[in-house]
Amino acid sequence: MSKAIVIALDGMGGDNAPDSVIKGAVLALKKLPNGVAFKIYGDETKLKPLINQHNSLQGRMEIIHTEEVVLPEDKPSFALRKRKKSSMKLAIDAVRDGDADAVVSSGNTGALMALSLFTLRTIEGVSRPAICAPVPNPKGASVMLDLGANVECDADNLVQFAVMGSDYARTVLGVKRPTVGLLNIGTEELKGRDEIRLAAEILKNKKDADFEYTGFVEGDDLVNGRVDVIVTDGFTGNIALKTLEGLAKTMARSLKSSIKSSPLAWFGMPFLSWALLSFKRKFDPRRYDGAVLAGLNGVVVKGHGGTDAIGFASAIQVAYQIASQDYAGQLKRHL
Amino acid sequence: MSKAIVIALDGMGGDNAPDSVIKGAVLALKKLPNGVAFKIYGDETKLKPLINQHNSLQGRMEIIHTEEVVLPEDKPSFALRKRKKSSMKLAIDAVRDGDADAVVSSGNTGALMALSLFTLRTIEGVSRPAICAPVPNPKGASVMLDLGANVECDADNLVQFAVMGSDYARTVLGVKRPTVGLLNIGTEELKGRDEIRLAAEILKNKKDADFEYTGFVEGDDLVNGRVDVIVTDGFTGNIALKTLEGLAKTMARSLKSSIKSSPLAWFGMPFLSWALLSFKRKFDPRRYDGAVLAGLNGVVVKGHGGTDAIGFASAIQVAYQIASQDYAGQLKRHL
Repeated sequence: MSKAIVIALDGMGGDNAPDSVIKGAVLALKKLPNGVAFKIYGDETKLKPLINQHNSLQGRMEIIHTEEVVLPEDKPSFALRKRKKSSMKLAIDAVRDGDADAVVSSGNTGALMALSLFTLRTIEGVSRPAICAPVPNPKGASVMLDLGANVECDADNLVQFAVMGSDYARTVLGVKRPTVGLLNIGTEELKGRDEIRLAAEILKNKKDADFEYTGFVEGDDLVNGRVDVIVTDGFTGNIALKTLEGLAKTMARSLKSSIKSSPLAWFGMPFLSWALLSFKRKFDPRRYDGAVLAGLNGVVVKGHGGTDAIGFASAIQVAYQIASQDYAGQLKRHL
Repeated sequence: MSKAIVIALDGMGGDNAPDSVIKGAVLALKKLPNGVAFKIYGDETKLKPLINQHNSLQGRMEIIHTEEVVLPEDKPSFALRKRKKSSMKLAIDAVRDGDADAVVSSGNTGALMALSLFTLRTIEGVSRPAICAPVPNPKGASVMLDLGANVECDADNLVQFAVMGSDYARTVLGVKRPTVGLLNIGTEELKGRDEIRLAAEILKNKKDADFEYTGFVEGDDLVNGRVDVIVTDGFTGNIALKTLEGLAKTMARSLKSSIKSSPLAWFGMPFLSWALLSFKRKFDPRRYDGAVLAGLNGVVVKGHGGTDAIGFASAIQVAYQIASQDYAGQLKRHL
């Protein structure tokens, strides 16, 4: 039987909170074992009536009333000074104090990173935490990090990211011995920036690694499943991820408008709807919601700011997997 | 009447050369004015029989026999020392000597950049040339630079790229007063790397600019047409472009396999073929082939290494537009 897991939820974070948070929890519970329970942090008067609408949440979701919230426009430094009693901060505190095994928030990313780092600190051997998330491809998904926590990274950061990412691939994607690539502008050894070439040297000579370093990868390898883990700095990773999201949206919209503008196509649509739905499902970003702030003493998962219940449910499932499989423990051993 | 334009072609560069080069020229001629003529550099025994198959090339394509070629694996420094009589180098020389108005090659990018820079030098006011190409979006296309010539860039480089890119948008895309954005990981003023924030300051205060600087843009803005010109360093630009190409290919393949795996879809296909073709056409990378090595004293256009006749024809058309509209002259005035 699986261990009982308690997940702390920032009830007020995200564009569609608290609705998306509560409905997301309902959806997630359908896929999670019976032992899982939630603590939700936020305005009780708003949360209670929403929770009461769902039988499945009765006795499994405890409300902790908070009045303060982190706003989307709050700077990280401001959140650190002035949002000490916010739903976000108190949910993180629950992880630090052992009252919860993980925290999930769709709120302000910068504030979540700052408050988590301040409250939980990094695991020994990790200089900087990184944002880590799966990127879908036709074979399944690869893991990419950093997605925006660190605009500049040195070789040591990148090497640590390789360890953090491969433990994520093992824990969440179930890959026994993940392959790892360094994102670069060519696959030849002389290409790219100094810190990347130095990181490549270190990774190549790492004998005891629980992953297989395969060399440089390029932009197109982000979506073809060439490696399980793609390591890059937070600037490049953030831009690459948003580029992917942008193009996926643009292409889906463009396919729709191509079909709409062809009167003949309407006759064919009833036959194609299944195929188009299966296509759409493959690239639905909500299925891959849930970025982990990796390298901290505790599990912190960030849902997309604009996510809905389906996306938030994915984020909860990621938090469950990471927490129940002792990601932090693995990481400590591998660093 | 339009001025006569001579375009020098590297007949031996690219995976499918010389076939793609000659067929590309045939396709391009159908869309270009009568005055356009070609000089093709390469092995006469291979080129002559291919050229003789096309009536439209008779009297409009002069062969200059060369025996040396730049190989895909040649390092830039090696090409500089050892490929002085190659088809690529002699085609560039033709531009320097005024025997041609532009050069088009699908060969080794690093060698083309090194040989062009050595032979043509940069325009006064340009510290480093940049690779500049259009990126399609539903409204048309944006211009992005640098796409890989400079792995690290300072603020001055980025500001020069803004000028180079907006002159490209004016010349090739016909935008009178292009909007320019700096690629960053957020749109707030405090986000990103130092050199980007400094470049933003300079661009904001540039009073005499022939473009409109609109601030930071993010990864998803690469494909939504938010700005006409996207400025970034060559590392980020190269990875973002390859990410786009990779996802476009993956999504197209995935759509095909979704349709194939649904037996019902086959009945609908005859009705949808027009819509799917129009969708495919919008994202066909061959329509956007032709990256310009911007900032040089002369027009150098790089076709995709694996391109076919359709892609090479696009590259020739870009070279024609840049050369006939005096891109270099505009750039000199605006720097």
